[in-house]
Amino acid sequence: MGKSAFQLERLTFFSDAVFAIAITLLIIEVHVPHIGNGDDGAFLSALHELQPSFMGFVLSFLVIGALWVAHHRVFGMLADYSPAIMWPNMLLLMAVAFMPFATAFMSSAPLARVPEMFYSGTLLVAGLLQRMLFTRALRAPYLRHELAPELVSATRWRSWGLPTAAALSLVIAWFAPGWNNLVLIGIPLLVRLYAMMGRRRALRLASAPATA
Amino acid sequence: MGKSAFQLERLTFFSDAVFAIAITLLIIEVHVPHIGNGDDGAFLSALHELQPSFMGFVLSFLVIGALWVAHHRVFGMLADYSPAIMWPNMLLLMAVAFMPFATAFMSSAPLARVPEMFYSGTLLVAGLLQRMLFTRALRAPYLRHELAPELVSATRWRSWGLPTAAALSLVIAWFAPGWNNLVLIGIPLLVRLYAMMGRRRALRLASAPATA
Amino acid sequence: MGKSAFQLERLTFFSDAVFAIAITLLIIEVHVPHIGNGDDGAFLSALHELQPSFMGFVLSFLVIGALWVAHHRVFGMLADYSPAIMWPNMLLLMAVAFMPFATAFMSSAPLARVPEMFYSGTLLVAGLLQRMLFTRALRAPYLRHELAPELVSATRWRSWGLPTAAALSLVIAWFAPGWNNLVLIGIPLLVRLYAMMGRRRALRLASAPATA
Amino acid sequence: MGKSAFQLERLTFFSDAVFAIAITLLIIEVHVPHIGNGDDGAFLSALHELQPSFMGFVLSFLVIGALWVAHHRVFGMLADYSPAIMWPNMLLLMAVAFMPFATAFMSSAPLARVPEMFYSGTLLVAGLLQRMLFTRALRAPYLRHELAPELVSATRWRSWGLPTAAALSLVIAWFAPGWNNLVLIGIPLLVRLYAMMGRRRALRLASAPATA
Repeated sequence: MGKSAFQLERLTFFSDAVFAIAITLLIIEVHVPHIGNGDDGAFLSALHELQPSFMGFVLSFLVIGALWVAHHRVFGMLADYSPAIMWPNMLLLMAVAFMPFATAFMSSAPLARVPEMFYSGTLLVAGLLQRMLFTRALRAPYLRHELAPELVSATRWRSWGLPTAAALSLVIAWFAPGWNNLVLIGIPLLVRLYAMMGRRRALRLASAPATA
Repeated sequence: MGKSAFQLERLTFFSDAVFAIAITLLIIEVHVPHIGNGDDGAFLSALHELQPSFMGFVLSFLVIGALWVAHHRVFGMLADYSPAIMWPNMLLLMAVAFMPFATAFMSSAPLARVPEMFYSGTLLVAGLLQRMLFTRALRAPYLRHELAPELVSATRWRSWGLPTAAALSLVIAWFAPGWNNLVLIGIPLLVRLYAMMGRRRALRLASAPATA
Repeated sequence: MGKSAFQLERLTFFSDAVFAIAITLLIIEVHVPHIGNGDDGAFLSALHELQPSFMGFVLSFLVIGALWVAHHRVFGMLADYSPAIMWPNMLLLMAVAFMPFATAFMSSAPLARVPEMFYSGTLLVAGLLQRMLFTRALRAPYLRHELAPELVSATRWRSWGLPTAAALSLVIAWFAPGWNNLVLIGIPLLVRLYAMMGRRRALRLASAPATA
Repeated sequence: MGKSAFQLERLTFFSDAVFAIAITLLIIEVHVPHIGNGDDGAFLSALHELQPSFMGFVLSFLVIGALWVAHHRVFGMLADYSPAIMWPNMLLLMAVAFMPFATAFMSSAPLARVPEMFYSGTLLVAGLLQRMLFTRALRAPYLRHELAPELVSATRWRSWGLPTAAALSLVIAWFAPGWNNLVLIGIPLLVRLYAMMGRRRALRLASAPATA
């Protein structure tokens, strides 16, 4: 393994660690109820009151998980890296590290407008930073040479999935706070649509007569 | 090391990090008593009151530790991985990351029915997700070729140990909350029994006249 | 990969993990407001009150991020390591691990003199420890042989950037607490200046007639 | 890299992650004072009151750091590993993960007998578990073949340093709680003494006429 590959590996590992810590810290913000000697009903109602926190935990776990899976996919396509991705990567990690706060804030008042918009806004920023990072990383000299251009194009396009859903969620949060998060269920579909568009576009370009 | 091996390594590494963080965060939920200028008796009784938290810490440390050891064993058998294990792995990690909450909830009322059943239920979910992950991971094209089929079968079967014990513990918690955790001591035995059954089954199948 | 390279990799990895945890723990110190059923204004003013915490989070994220990027750069230049860097590295990690406290203390009273000087002082200590580590690590027998001497010299010199800015910030904090952090914006410029000085110095030495 | 080496690497990385998290979580237990609009004196006295917490942070950082450095040294001597070290390693990690609690408990009442003895006791347990792990790991079939027997013997013996100092500290804590931690300063000396004894013993054995 060359030195440059090791430097890329270390960047990946550092990123993995931040993803892993942020995703695990989510549970710290779910505060354990201290009831002492209560009957079953007291415990059940305490759990019931925590429902928004549980839902926030699951939602953000899936979102950070999806961000990591995408990071894993994109960095798996690289043979080398440009120093120009160091800080975009750090900014993405900053948004990821901020997620436990945004999640806890939203869960503290799950039907209020401001916390919901704050959460959607955080997702939007994370999505745009991810998009910026992937665009910079997936450039010709750094890609593994055996990759098909339409695969690279599809990967670049699918990163529009999260920001699109987050922007929609942000708008809906204004009118129907709390329900807006349902939009996020559509992310896997959106991602697939964008990937398809990216693939088609690359194939169309390839089949067009070369002009250069 | 090929790219695919590196991608598997990174998946393993990310999982390790989540296991390591969840296992270490357990201690955060054990709240430090602040007594100030007390005599020895005051400190000793404060420690005494923390006993359920200490026991919860040790129990969950061993459970998460065992989940990690099993993960380490199974992924050590893989030469490659199917993308179909990404999300089952993520769901297992979600259950692991949830453990500090379930542990602290149980420790806050160690003889109450609801917290005990909540804890056993969390273990059951973790055990079933682990089972699902291992079944998907341990498939022919992804296994290292030198592995004996009976070893693979034993490894697949032993993952029934945790869900079996957790299901028993869940039932017992209804009748004798707090005592149900004693069942978990039997996990090493259960795991060995299941492994033996898996090995025998594979050997029986191998010695049977081939029909395909 | 030889054993010595693996030992260096493990040292790097352990350091990465501490950097990653410290950078992610920053968010734990931003306390989530619990308002319950407030109107939009109540939530907005709660967010407004958190502004110093958000700024502290961003500032310290960038500082720890920069410390990691520098660590990544310097260790990428090494082919081997001296046991003499183990404890300087550990002391640097101690300063990094201390950052979440210093950040939260500063954010709790962003215009007070003592917390601001405490924060700048922490940065100064971290900067000097980093400087000490890099000087010990970047020595002839441990460097990759293909590196140009002027690059090594520039890397050694640029580590004066953080301590210089932190010392300035510490002095200004006495007179204008809160405003002193603006100095830190100049770090990228300072680092570049020092790097240039280091490069020139090395080139001058190289072109001078050898006397040994 | 063979599969077995990778499994050893993963065990090491998991351990590193637990060490790194435990060492960084120490700061979480140092609670940030919230003074609001105080004068310089109010902030300075708040910092002064935190002095035991700062000292506990530094002490435990050095102790966990030393445990990690020793782990790094011993595992660097291994070419392979026995499955028999999995659980001793996990138990050592449990003691390490427990350190943030013991540290915070001691720091909350730095001159009280029970917290001091609790802390020394934790160190003693950690030291004995480390000793047990290293004895199991440093066995003939798993060692790198080029290692001199006297180096292995010295490494095995030096792991008596921490338990010896911790046991002394535990006894002194009974009579002079708070001062007992000064004993820990002697650890580097003790470790060197033990290493010397181990080396001599191995050389004596080697020069004795073989009887087998």
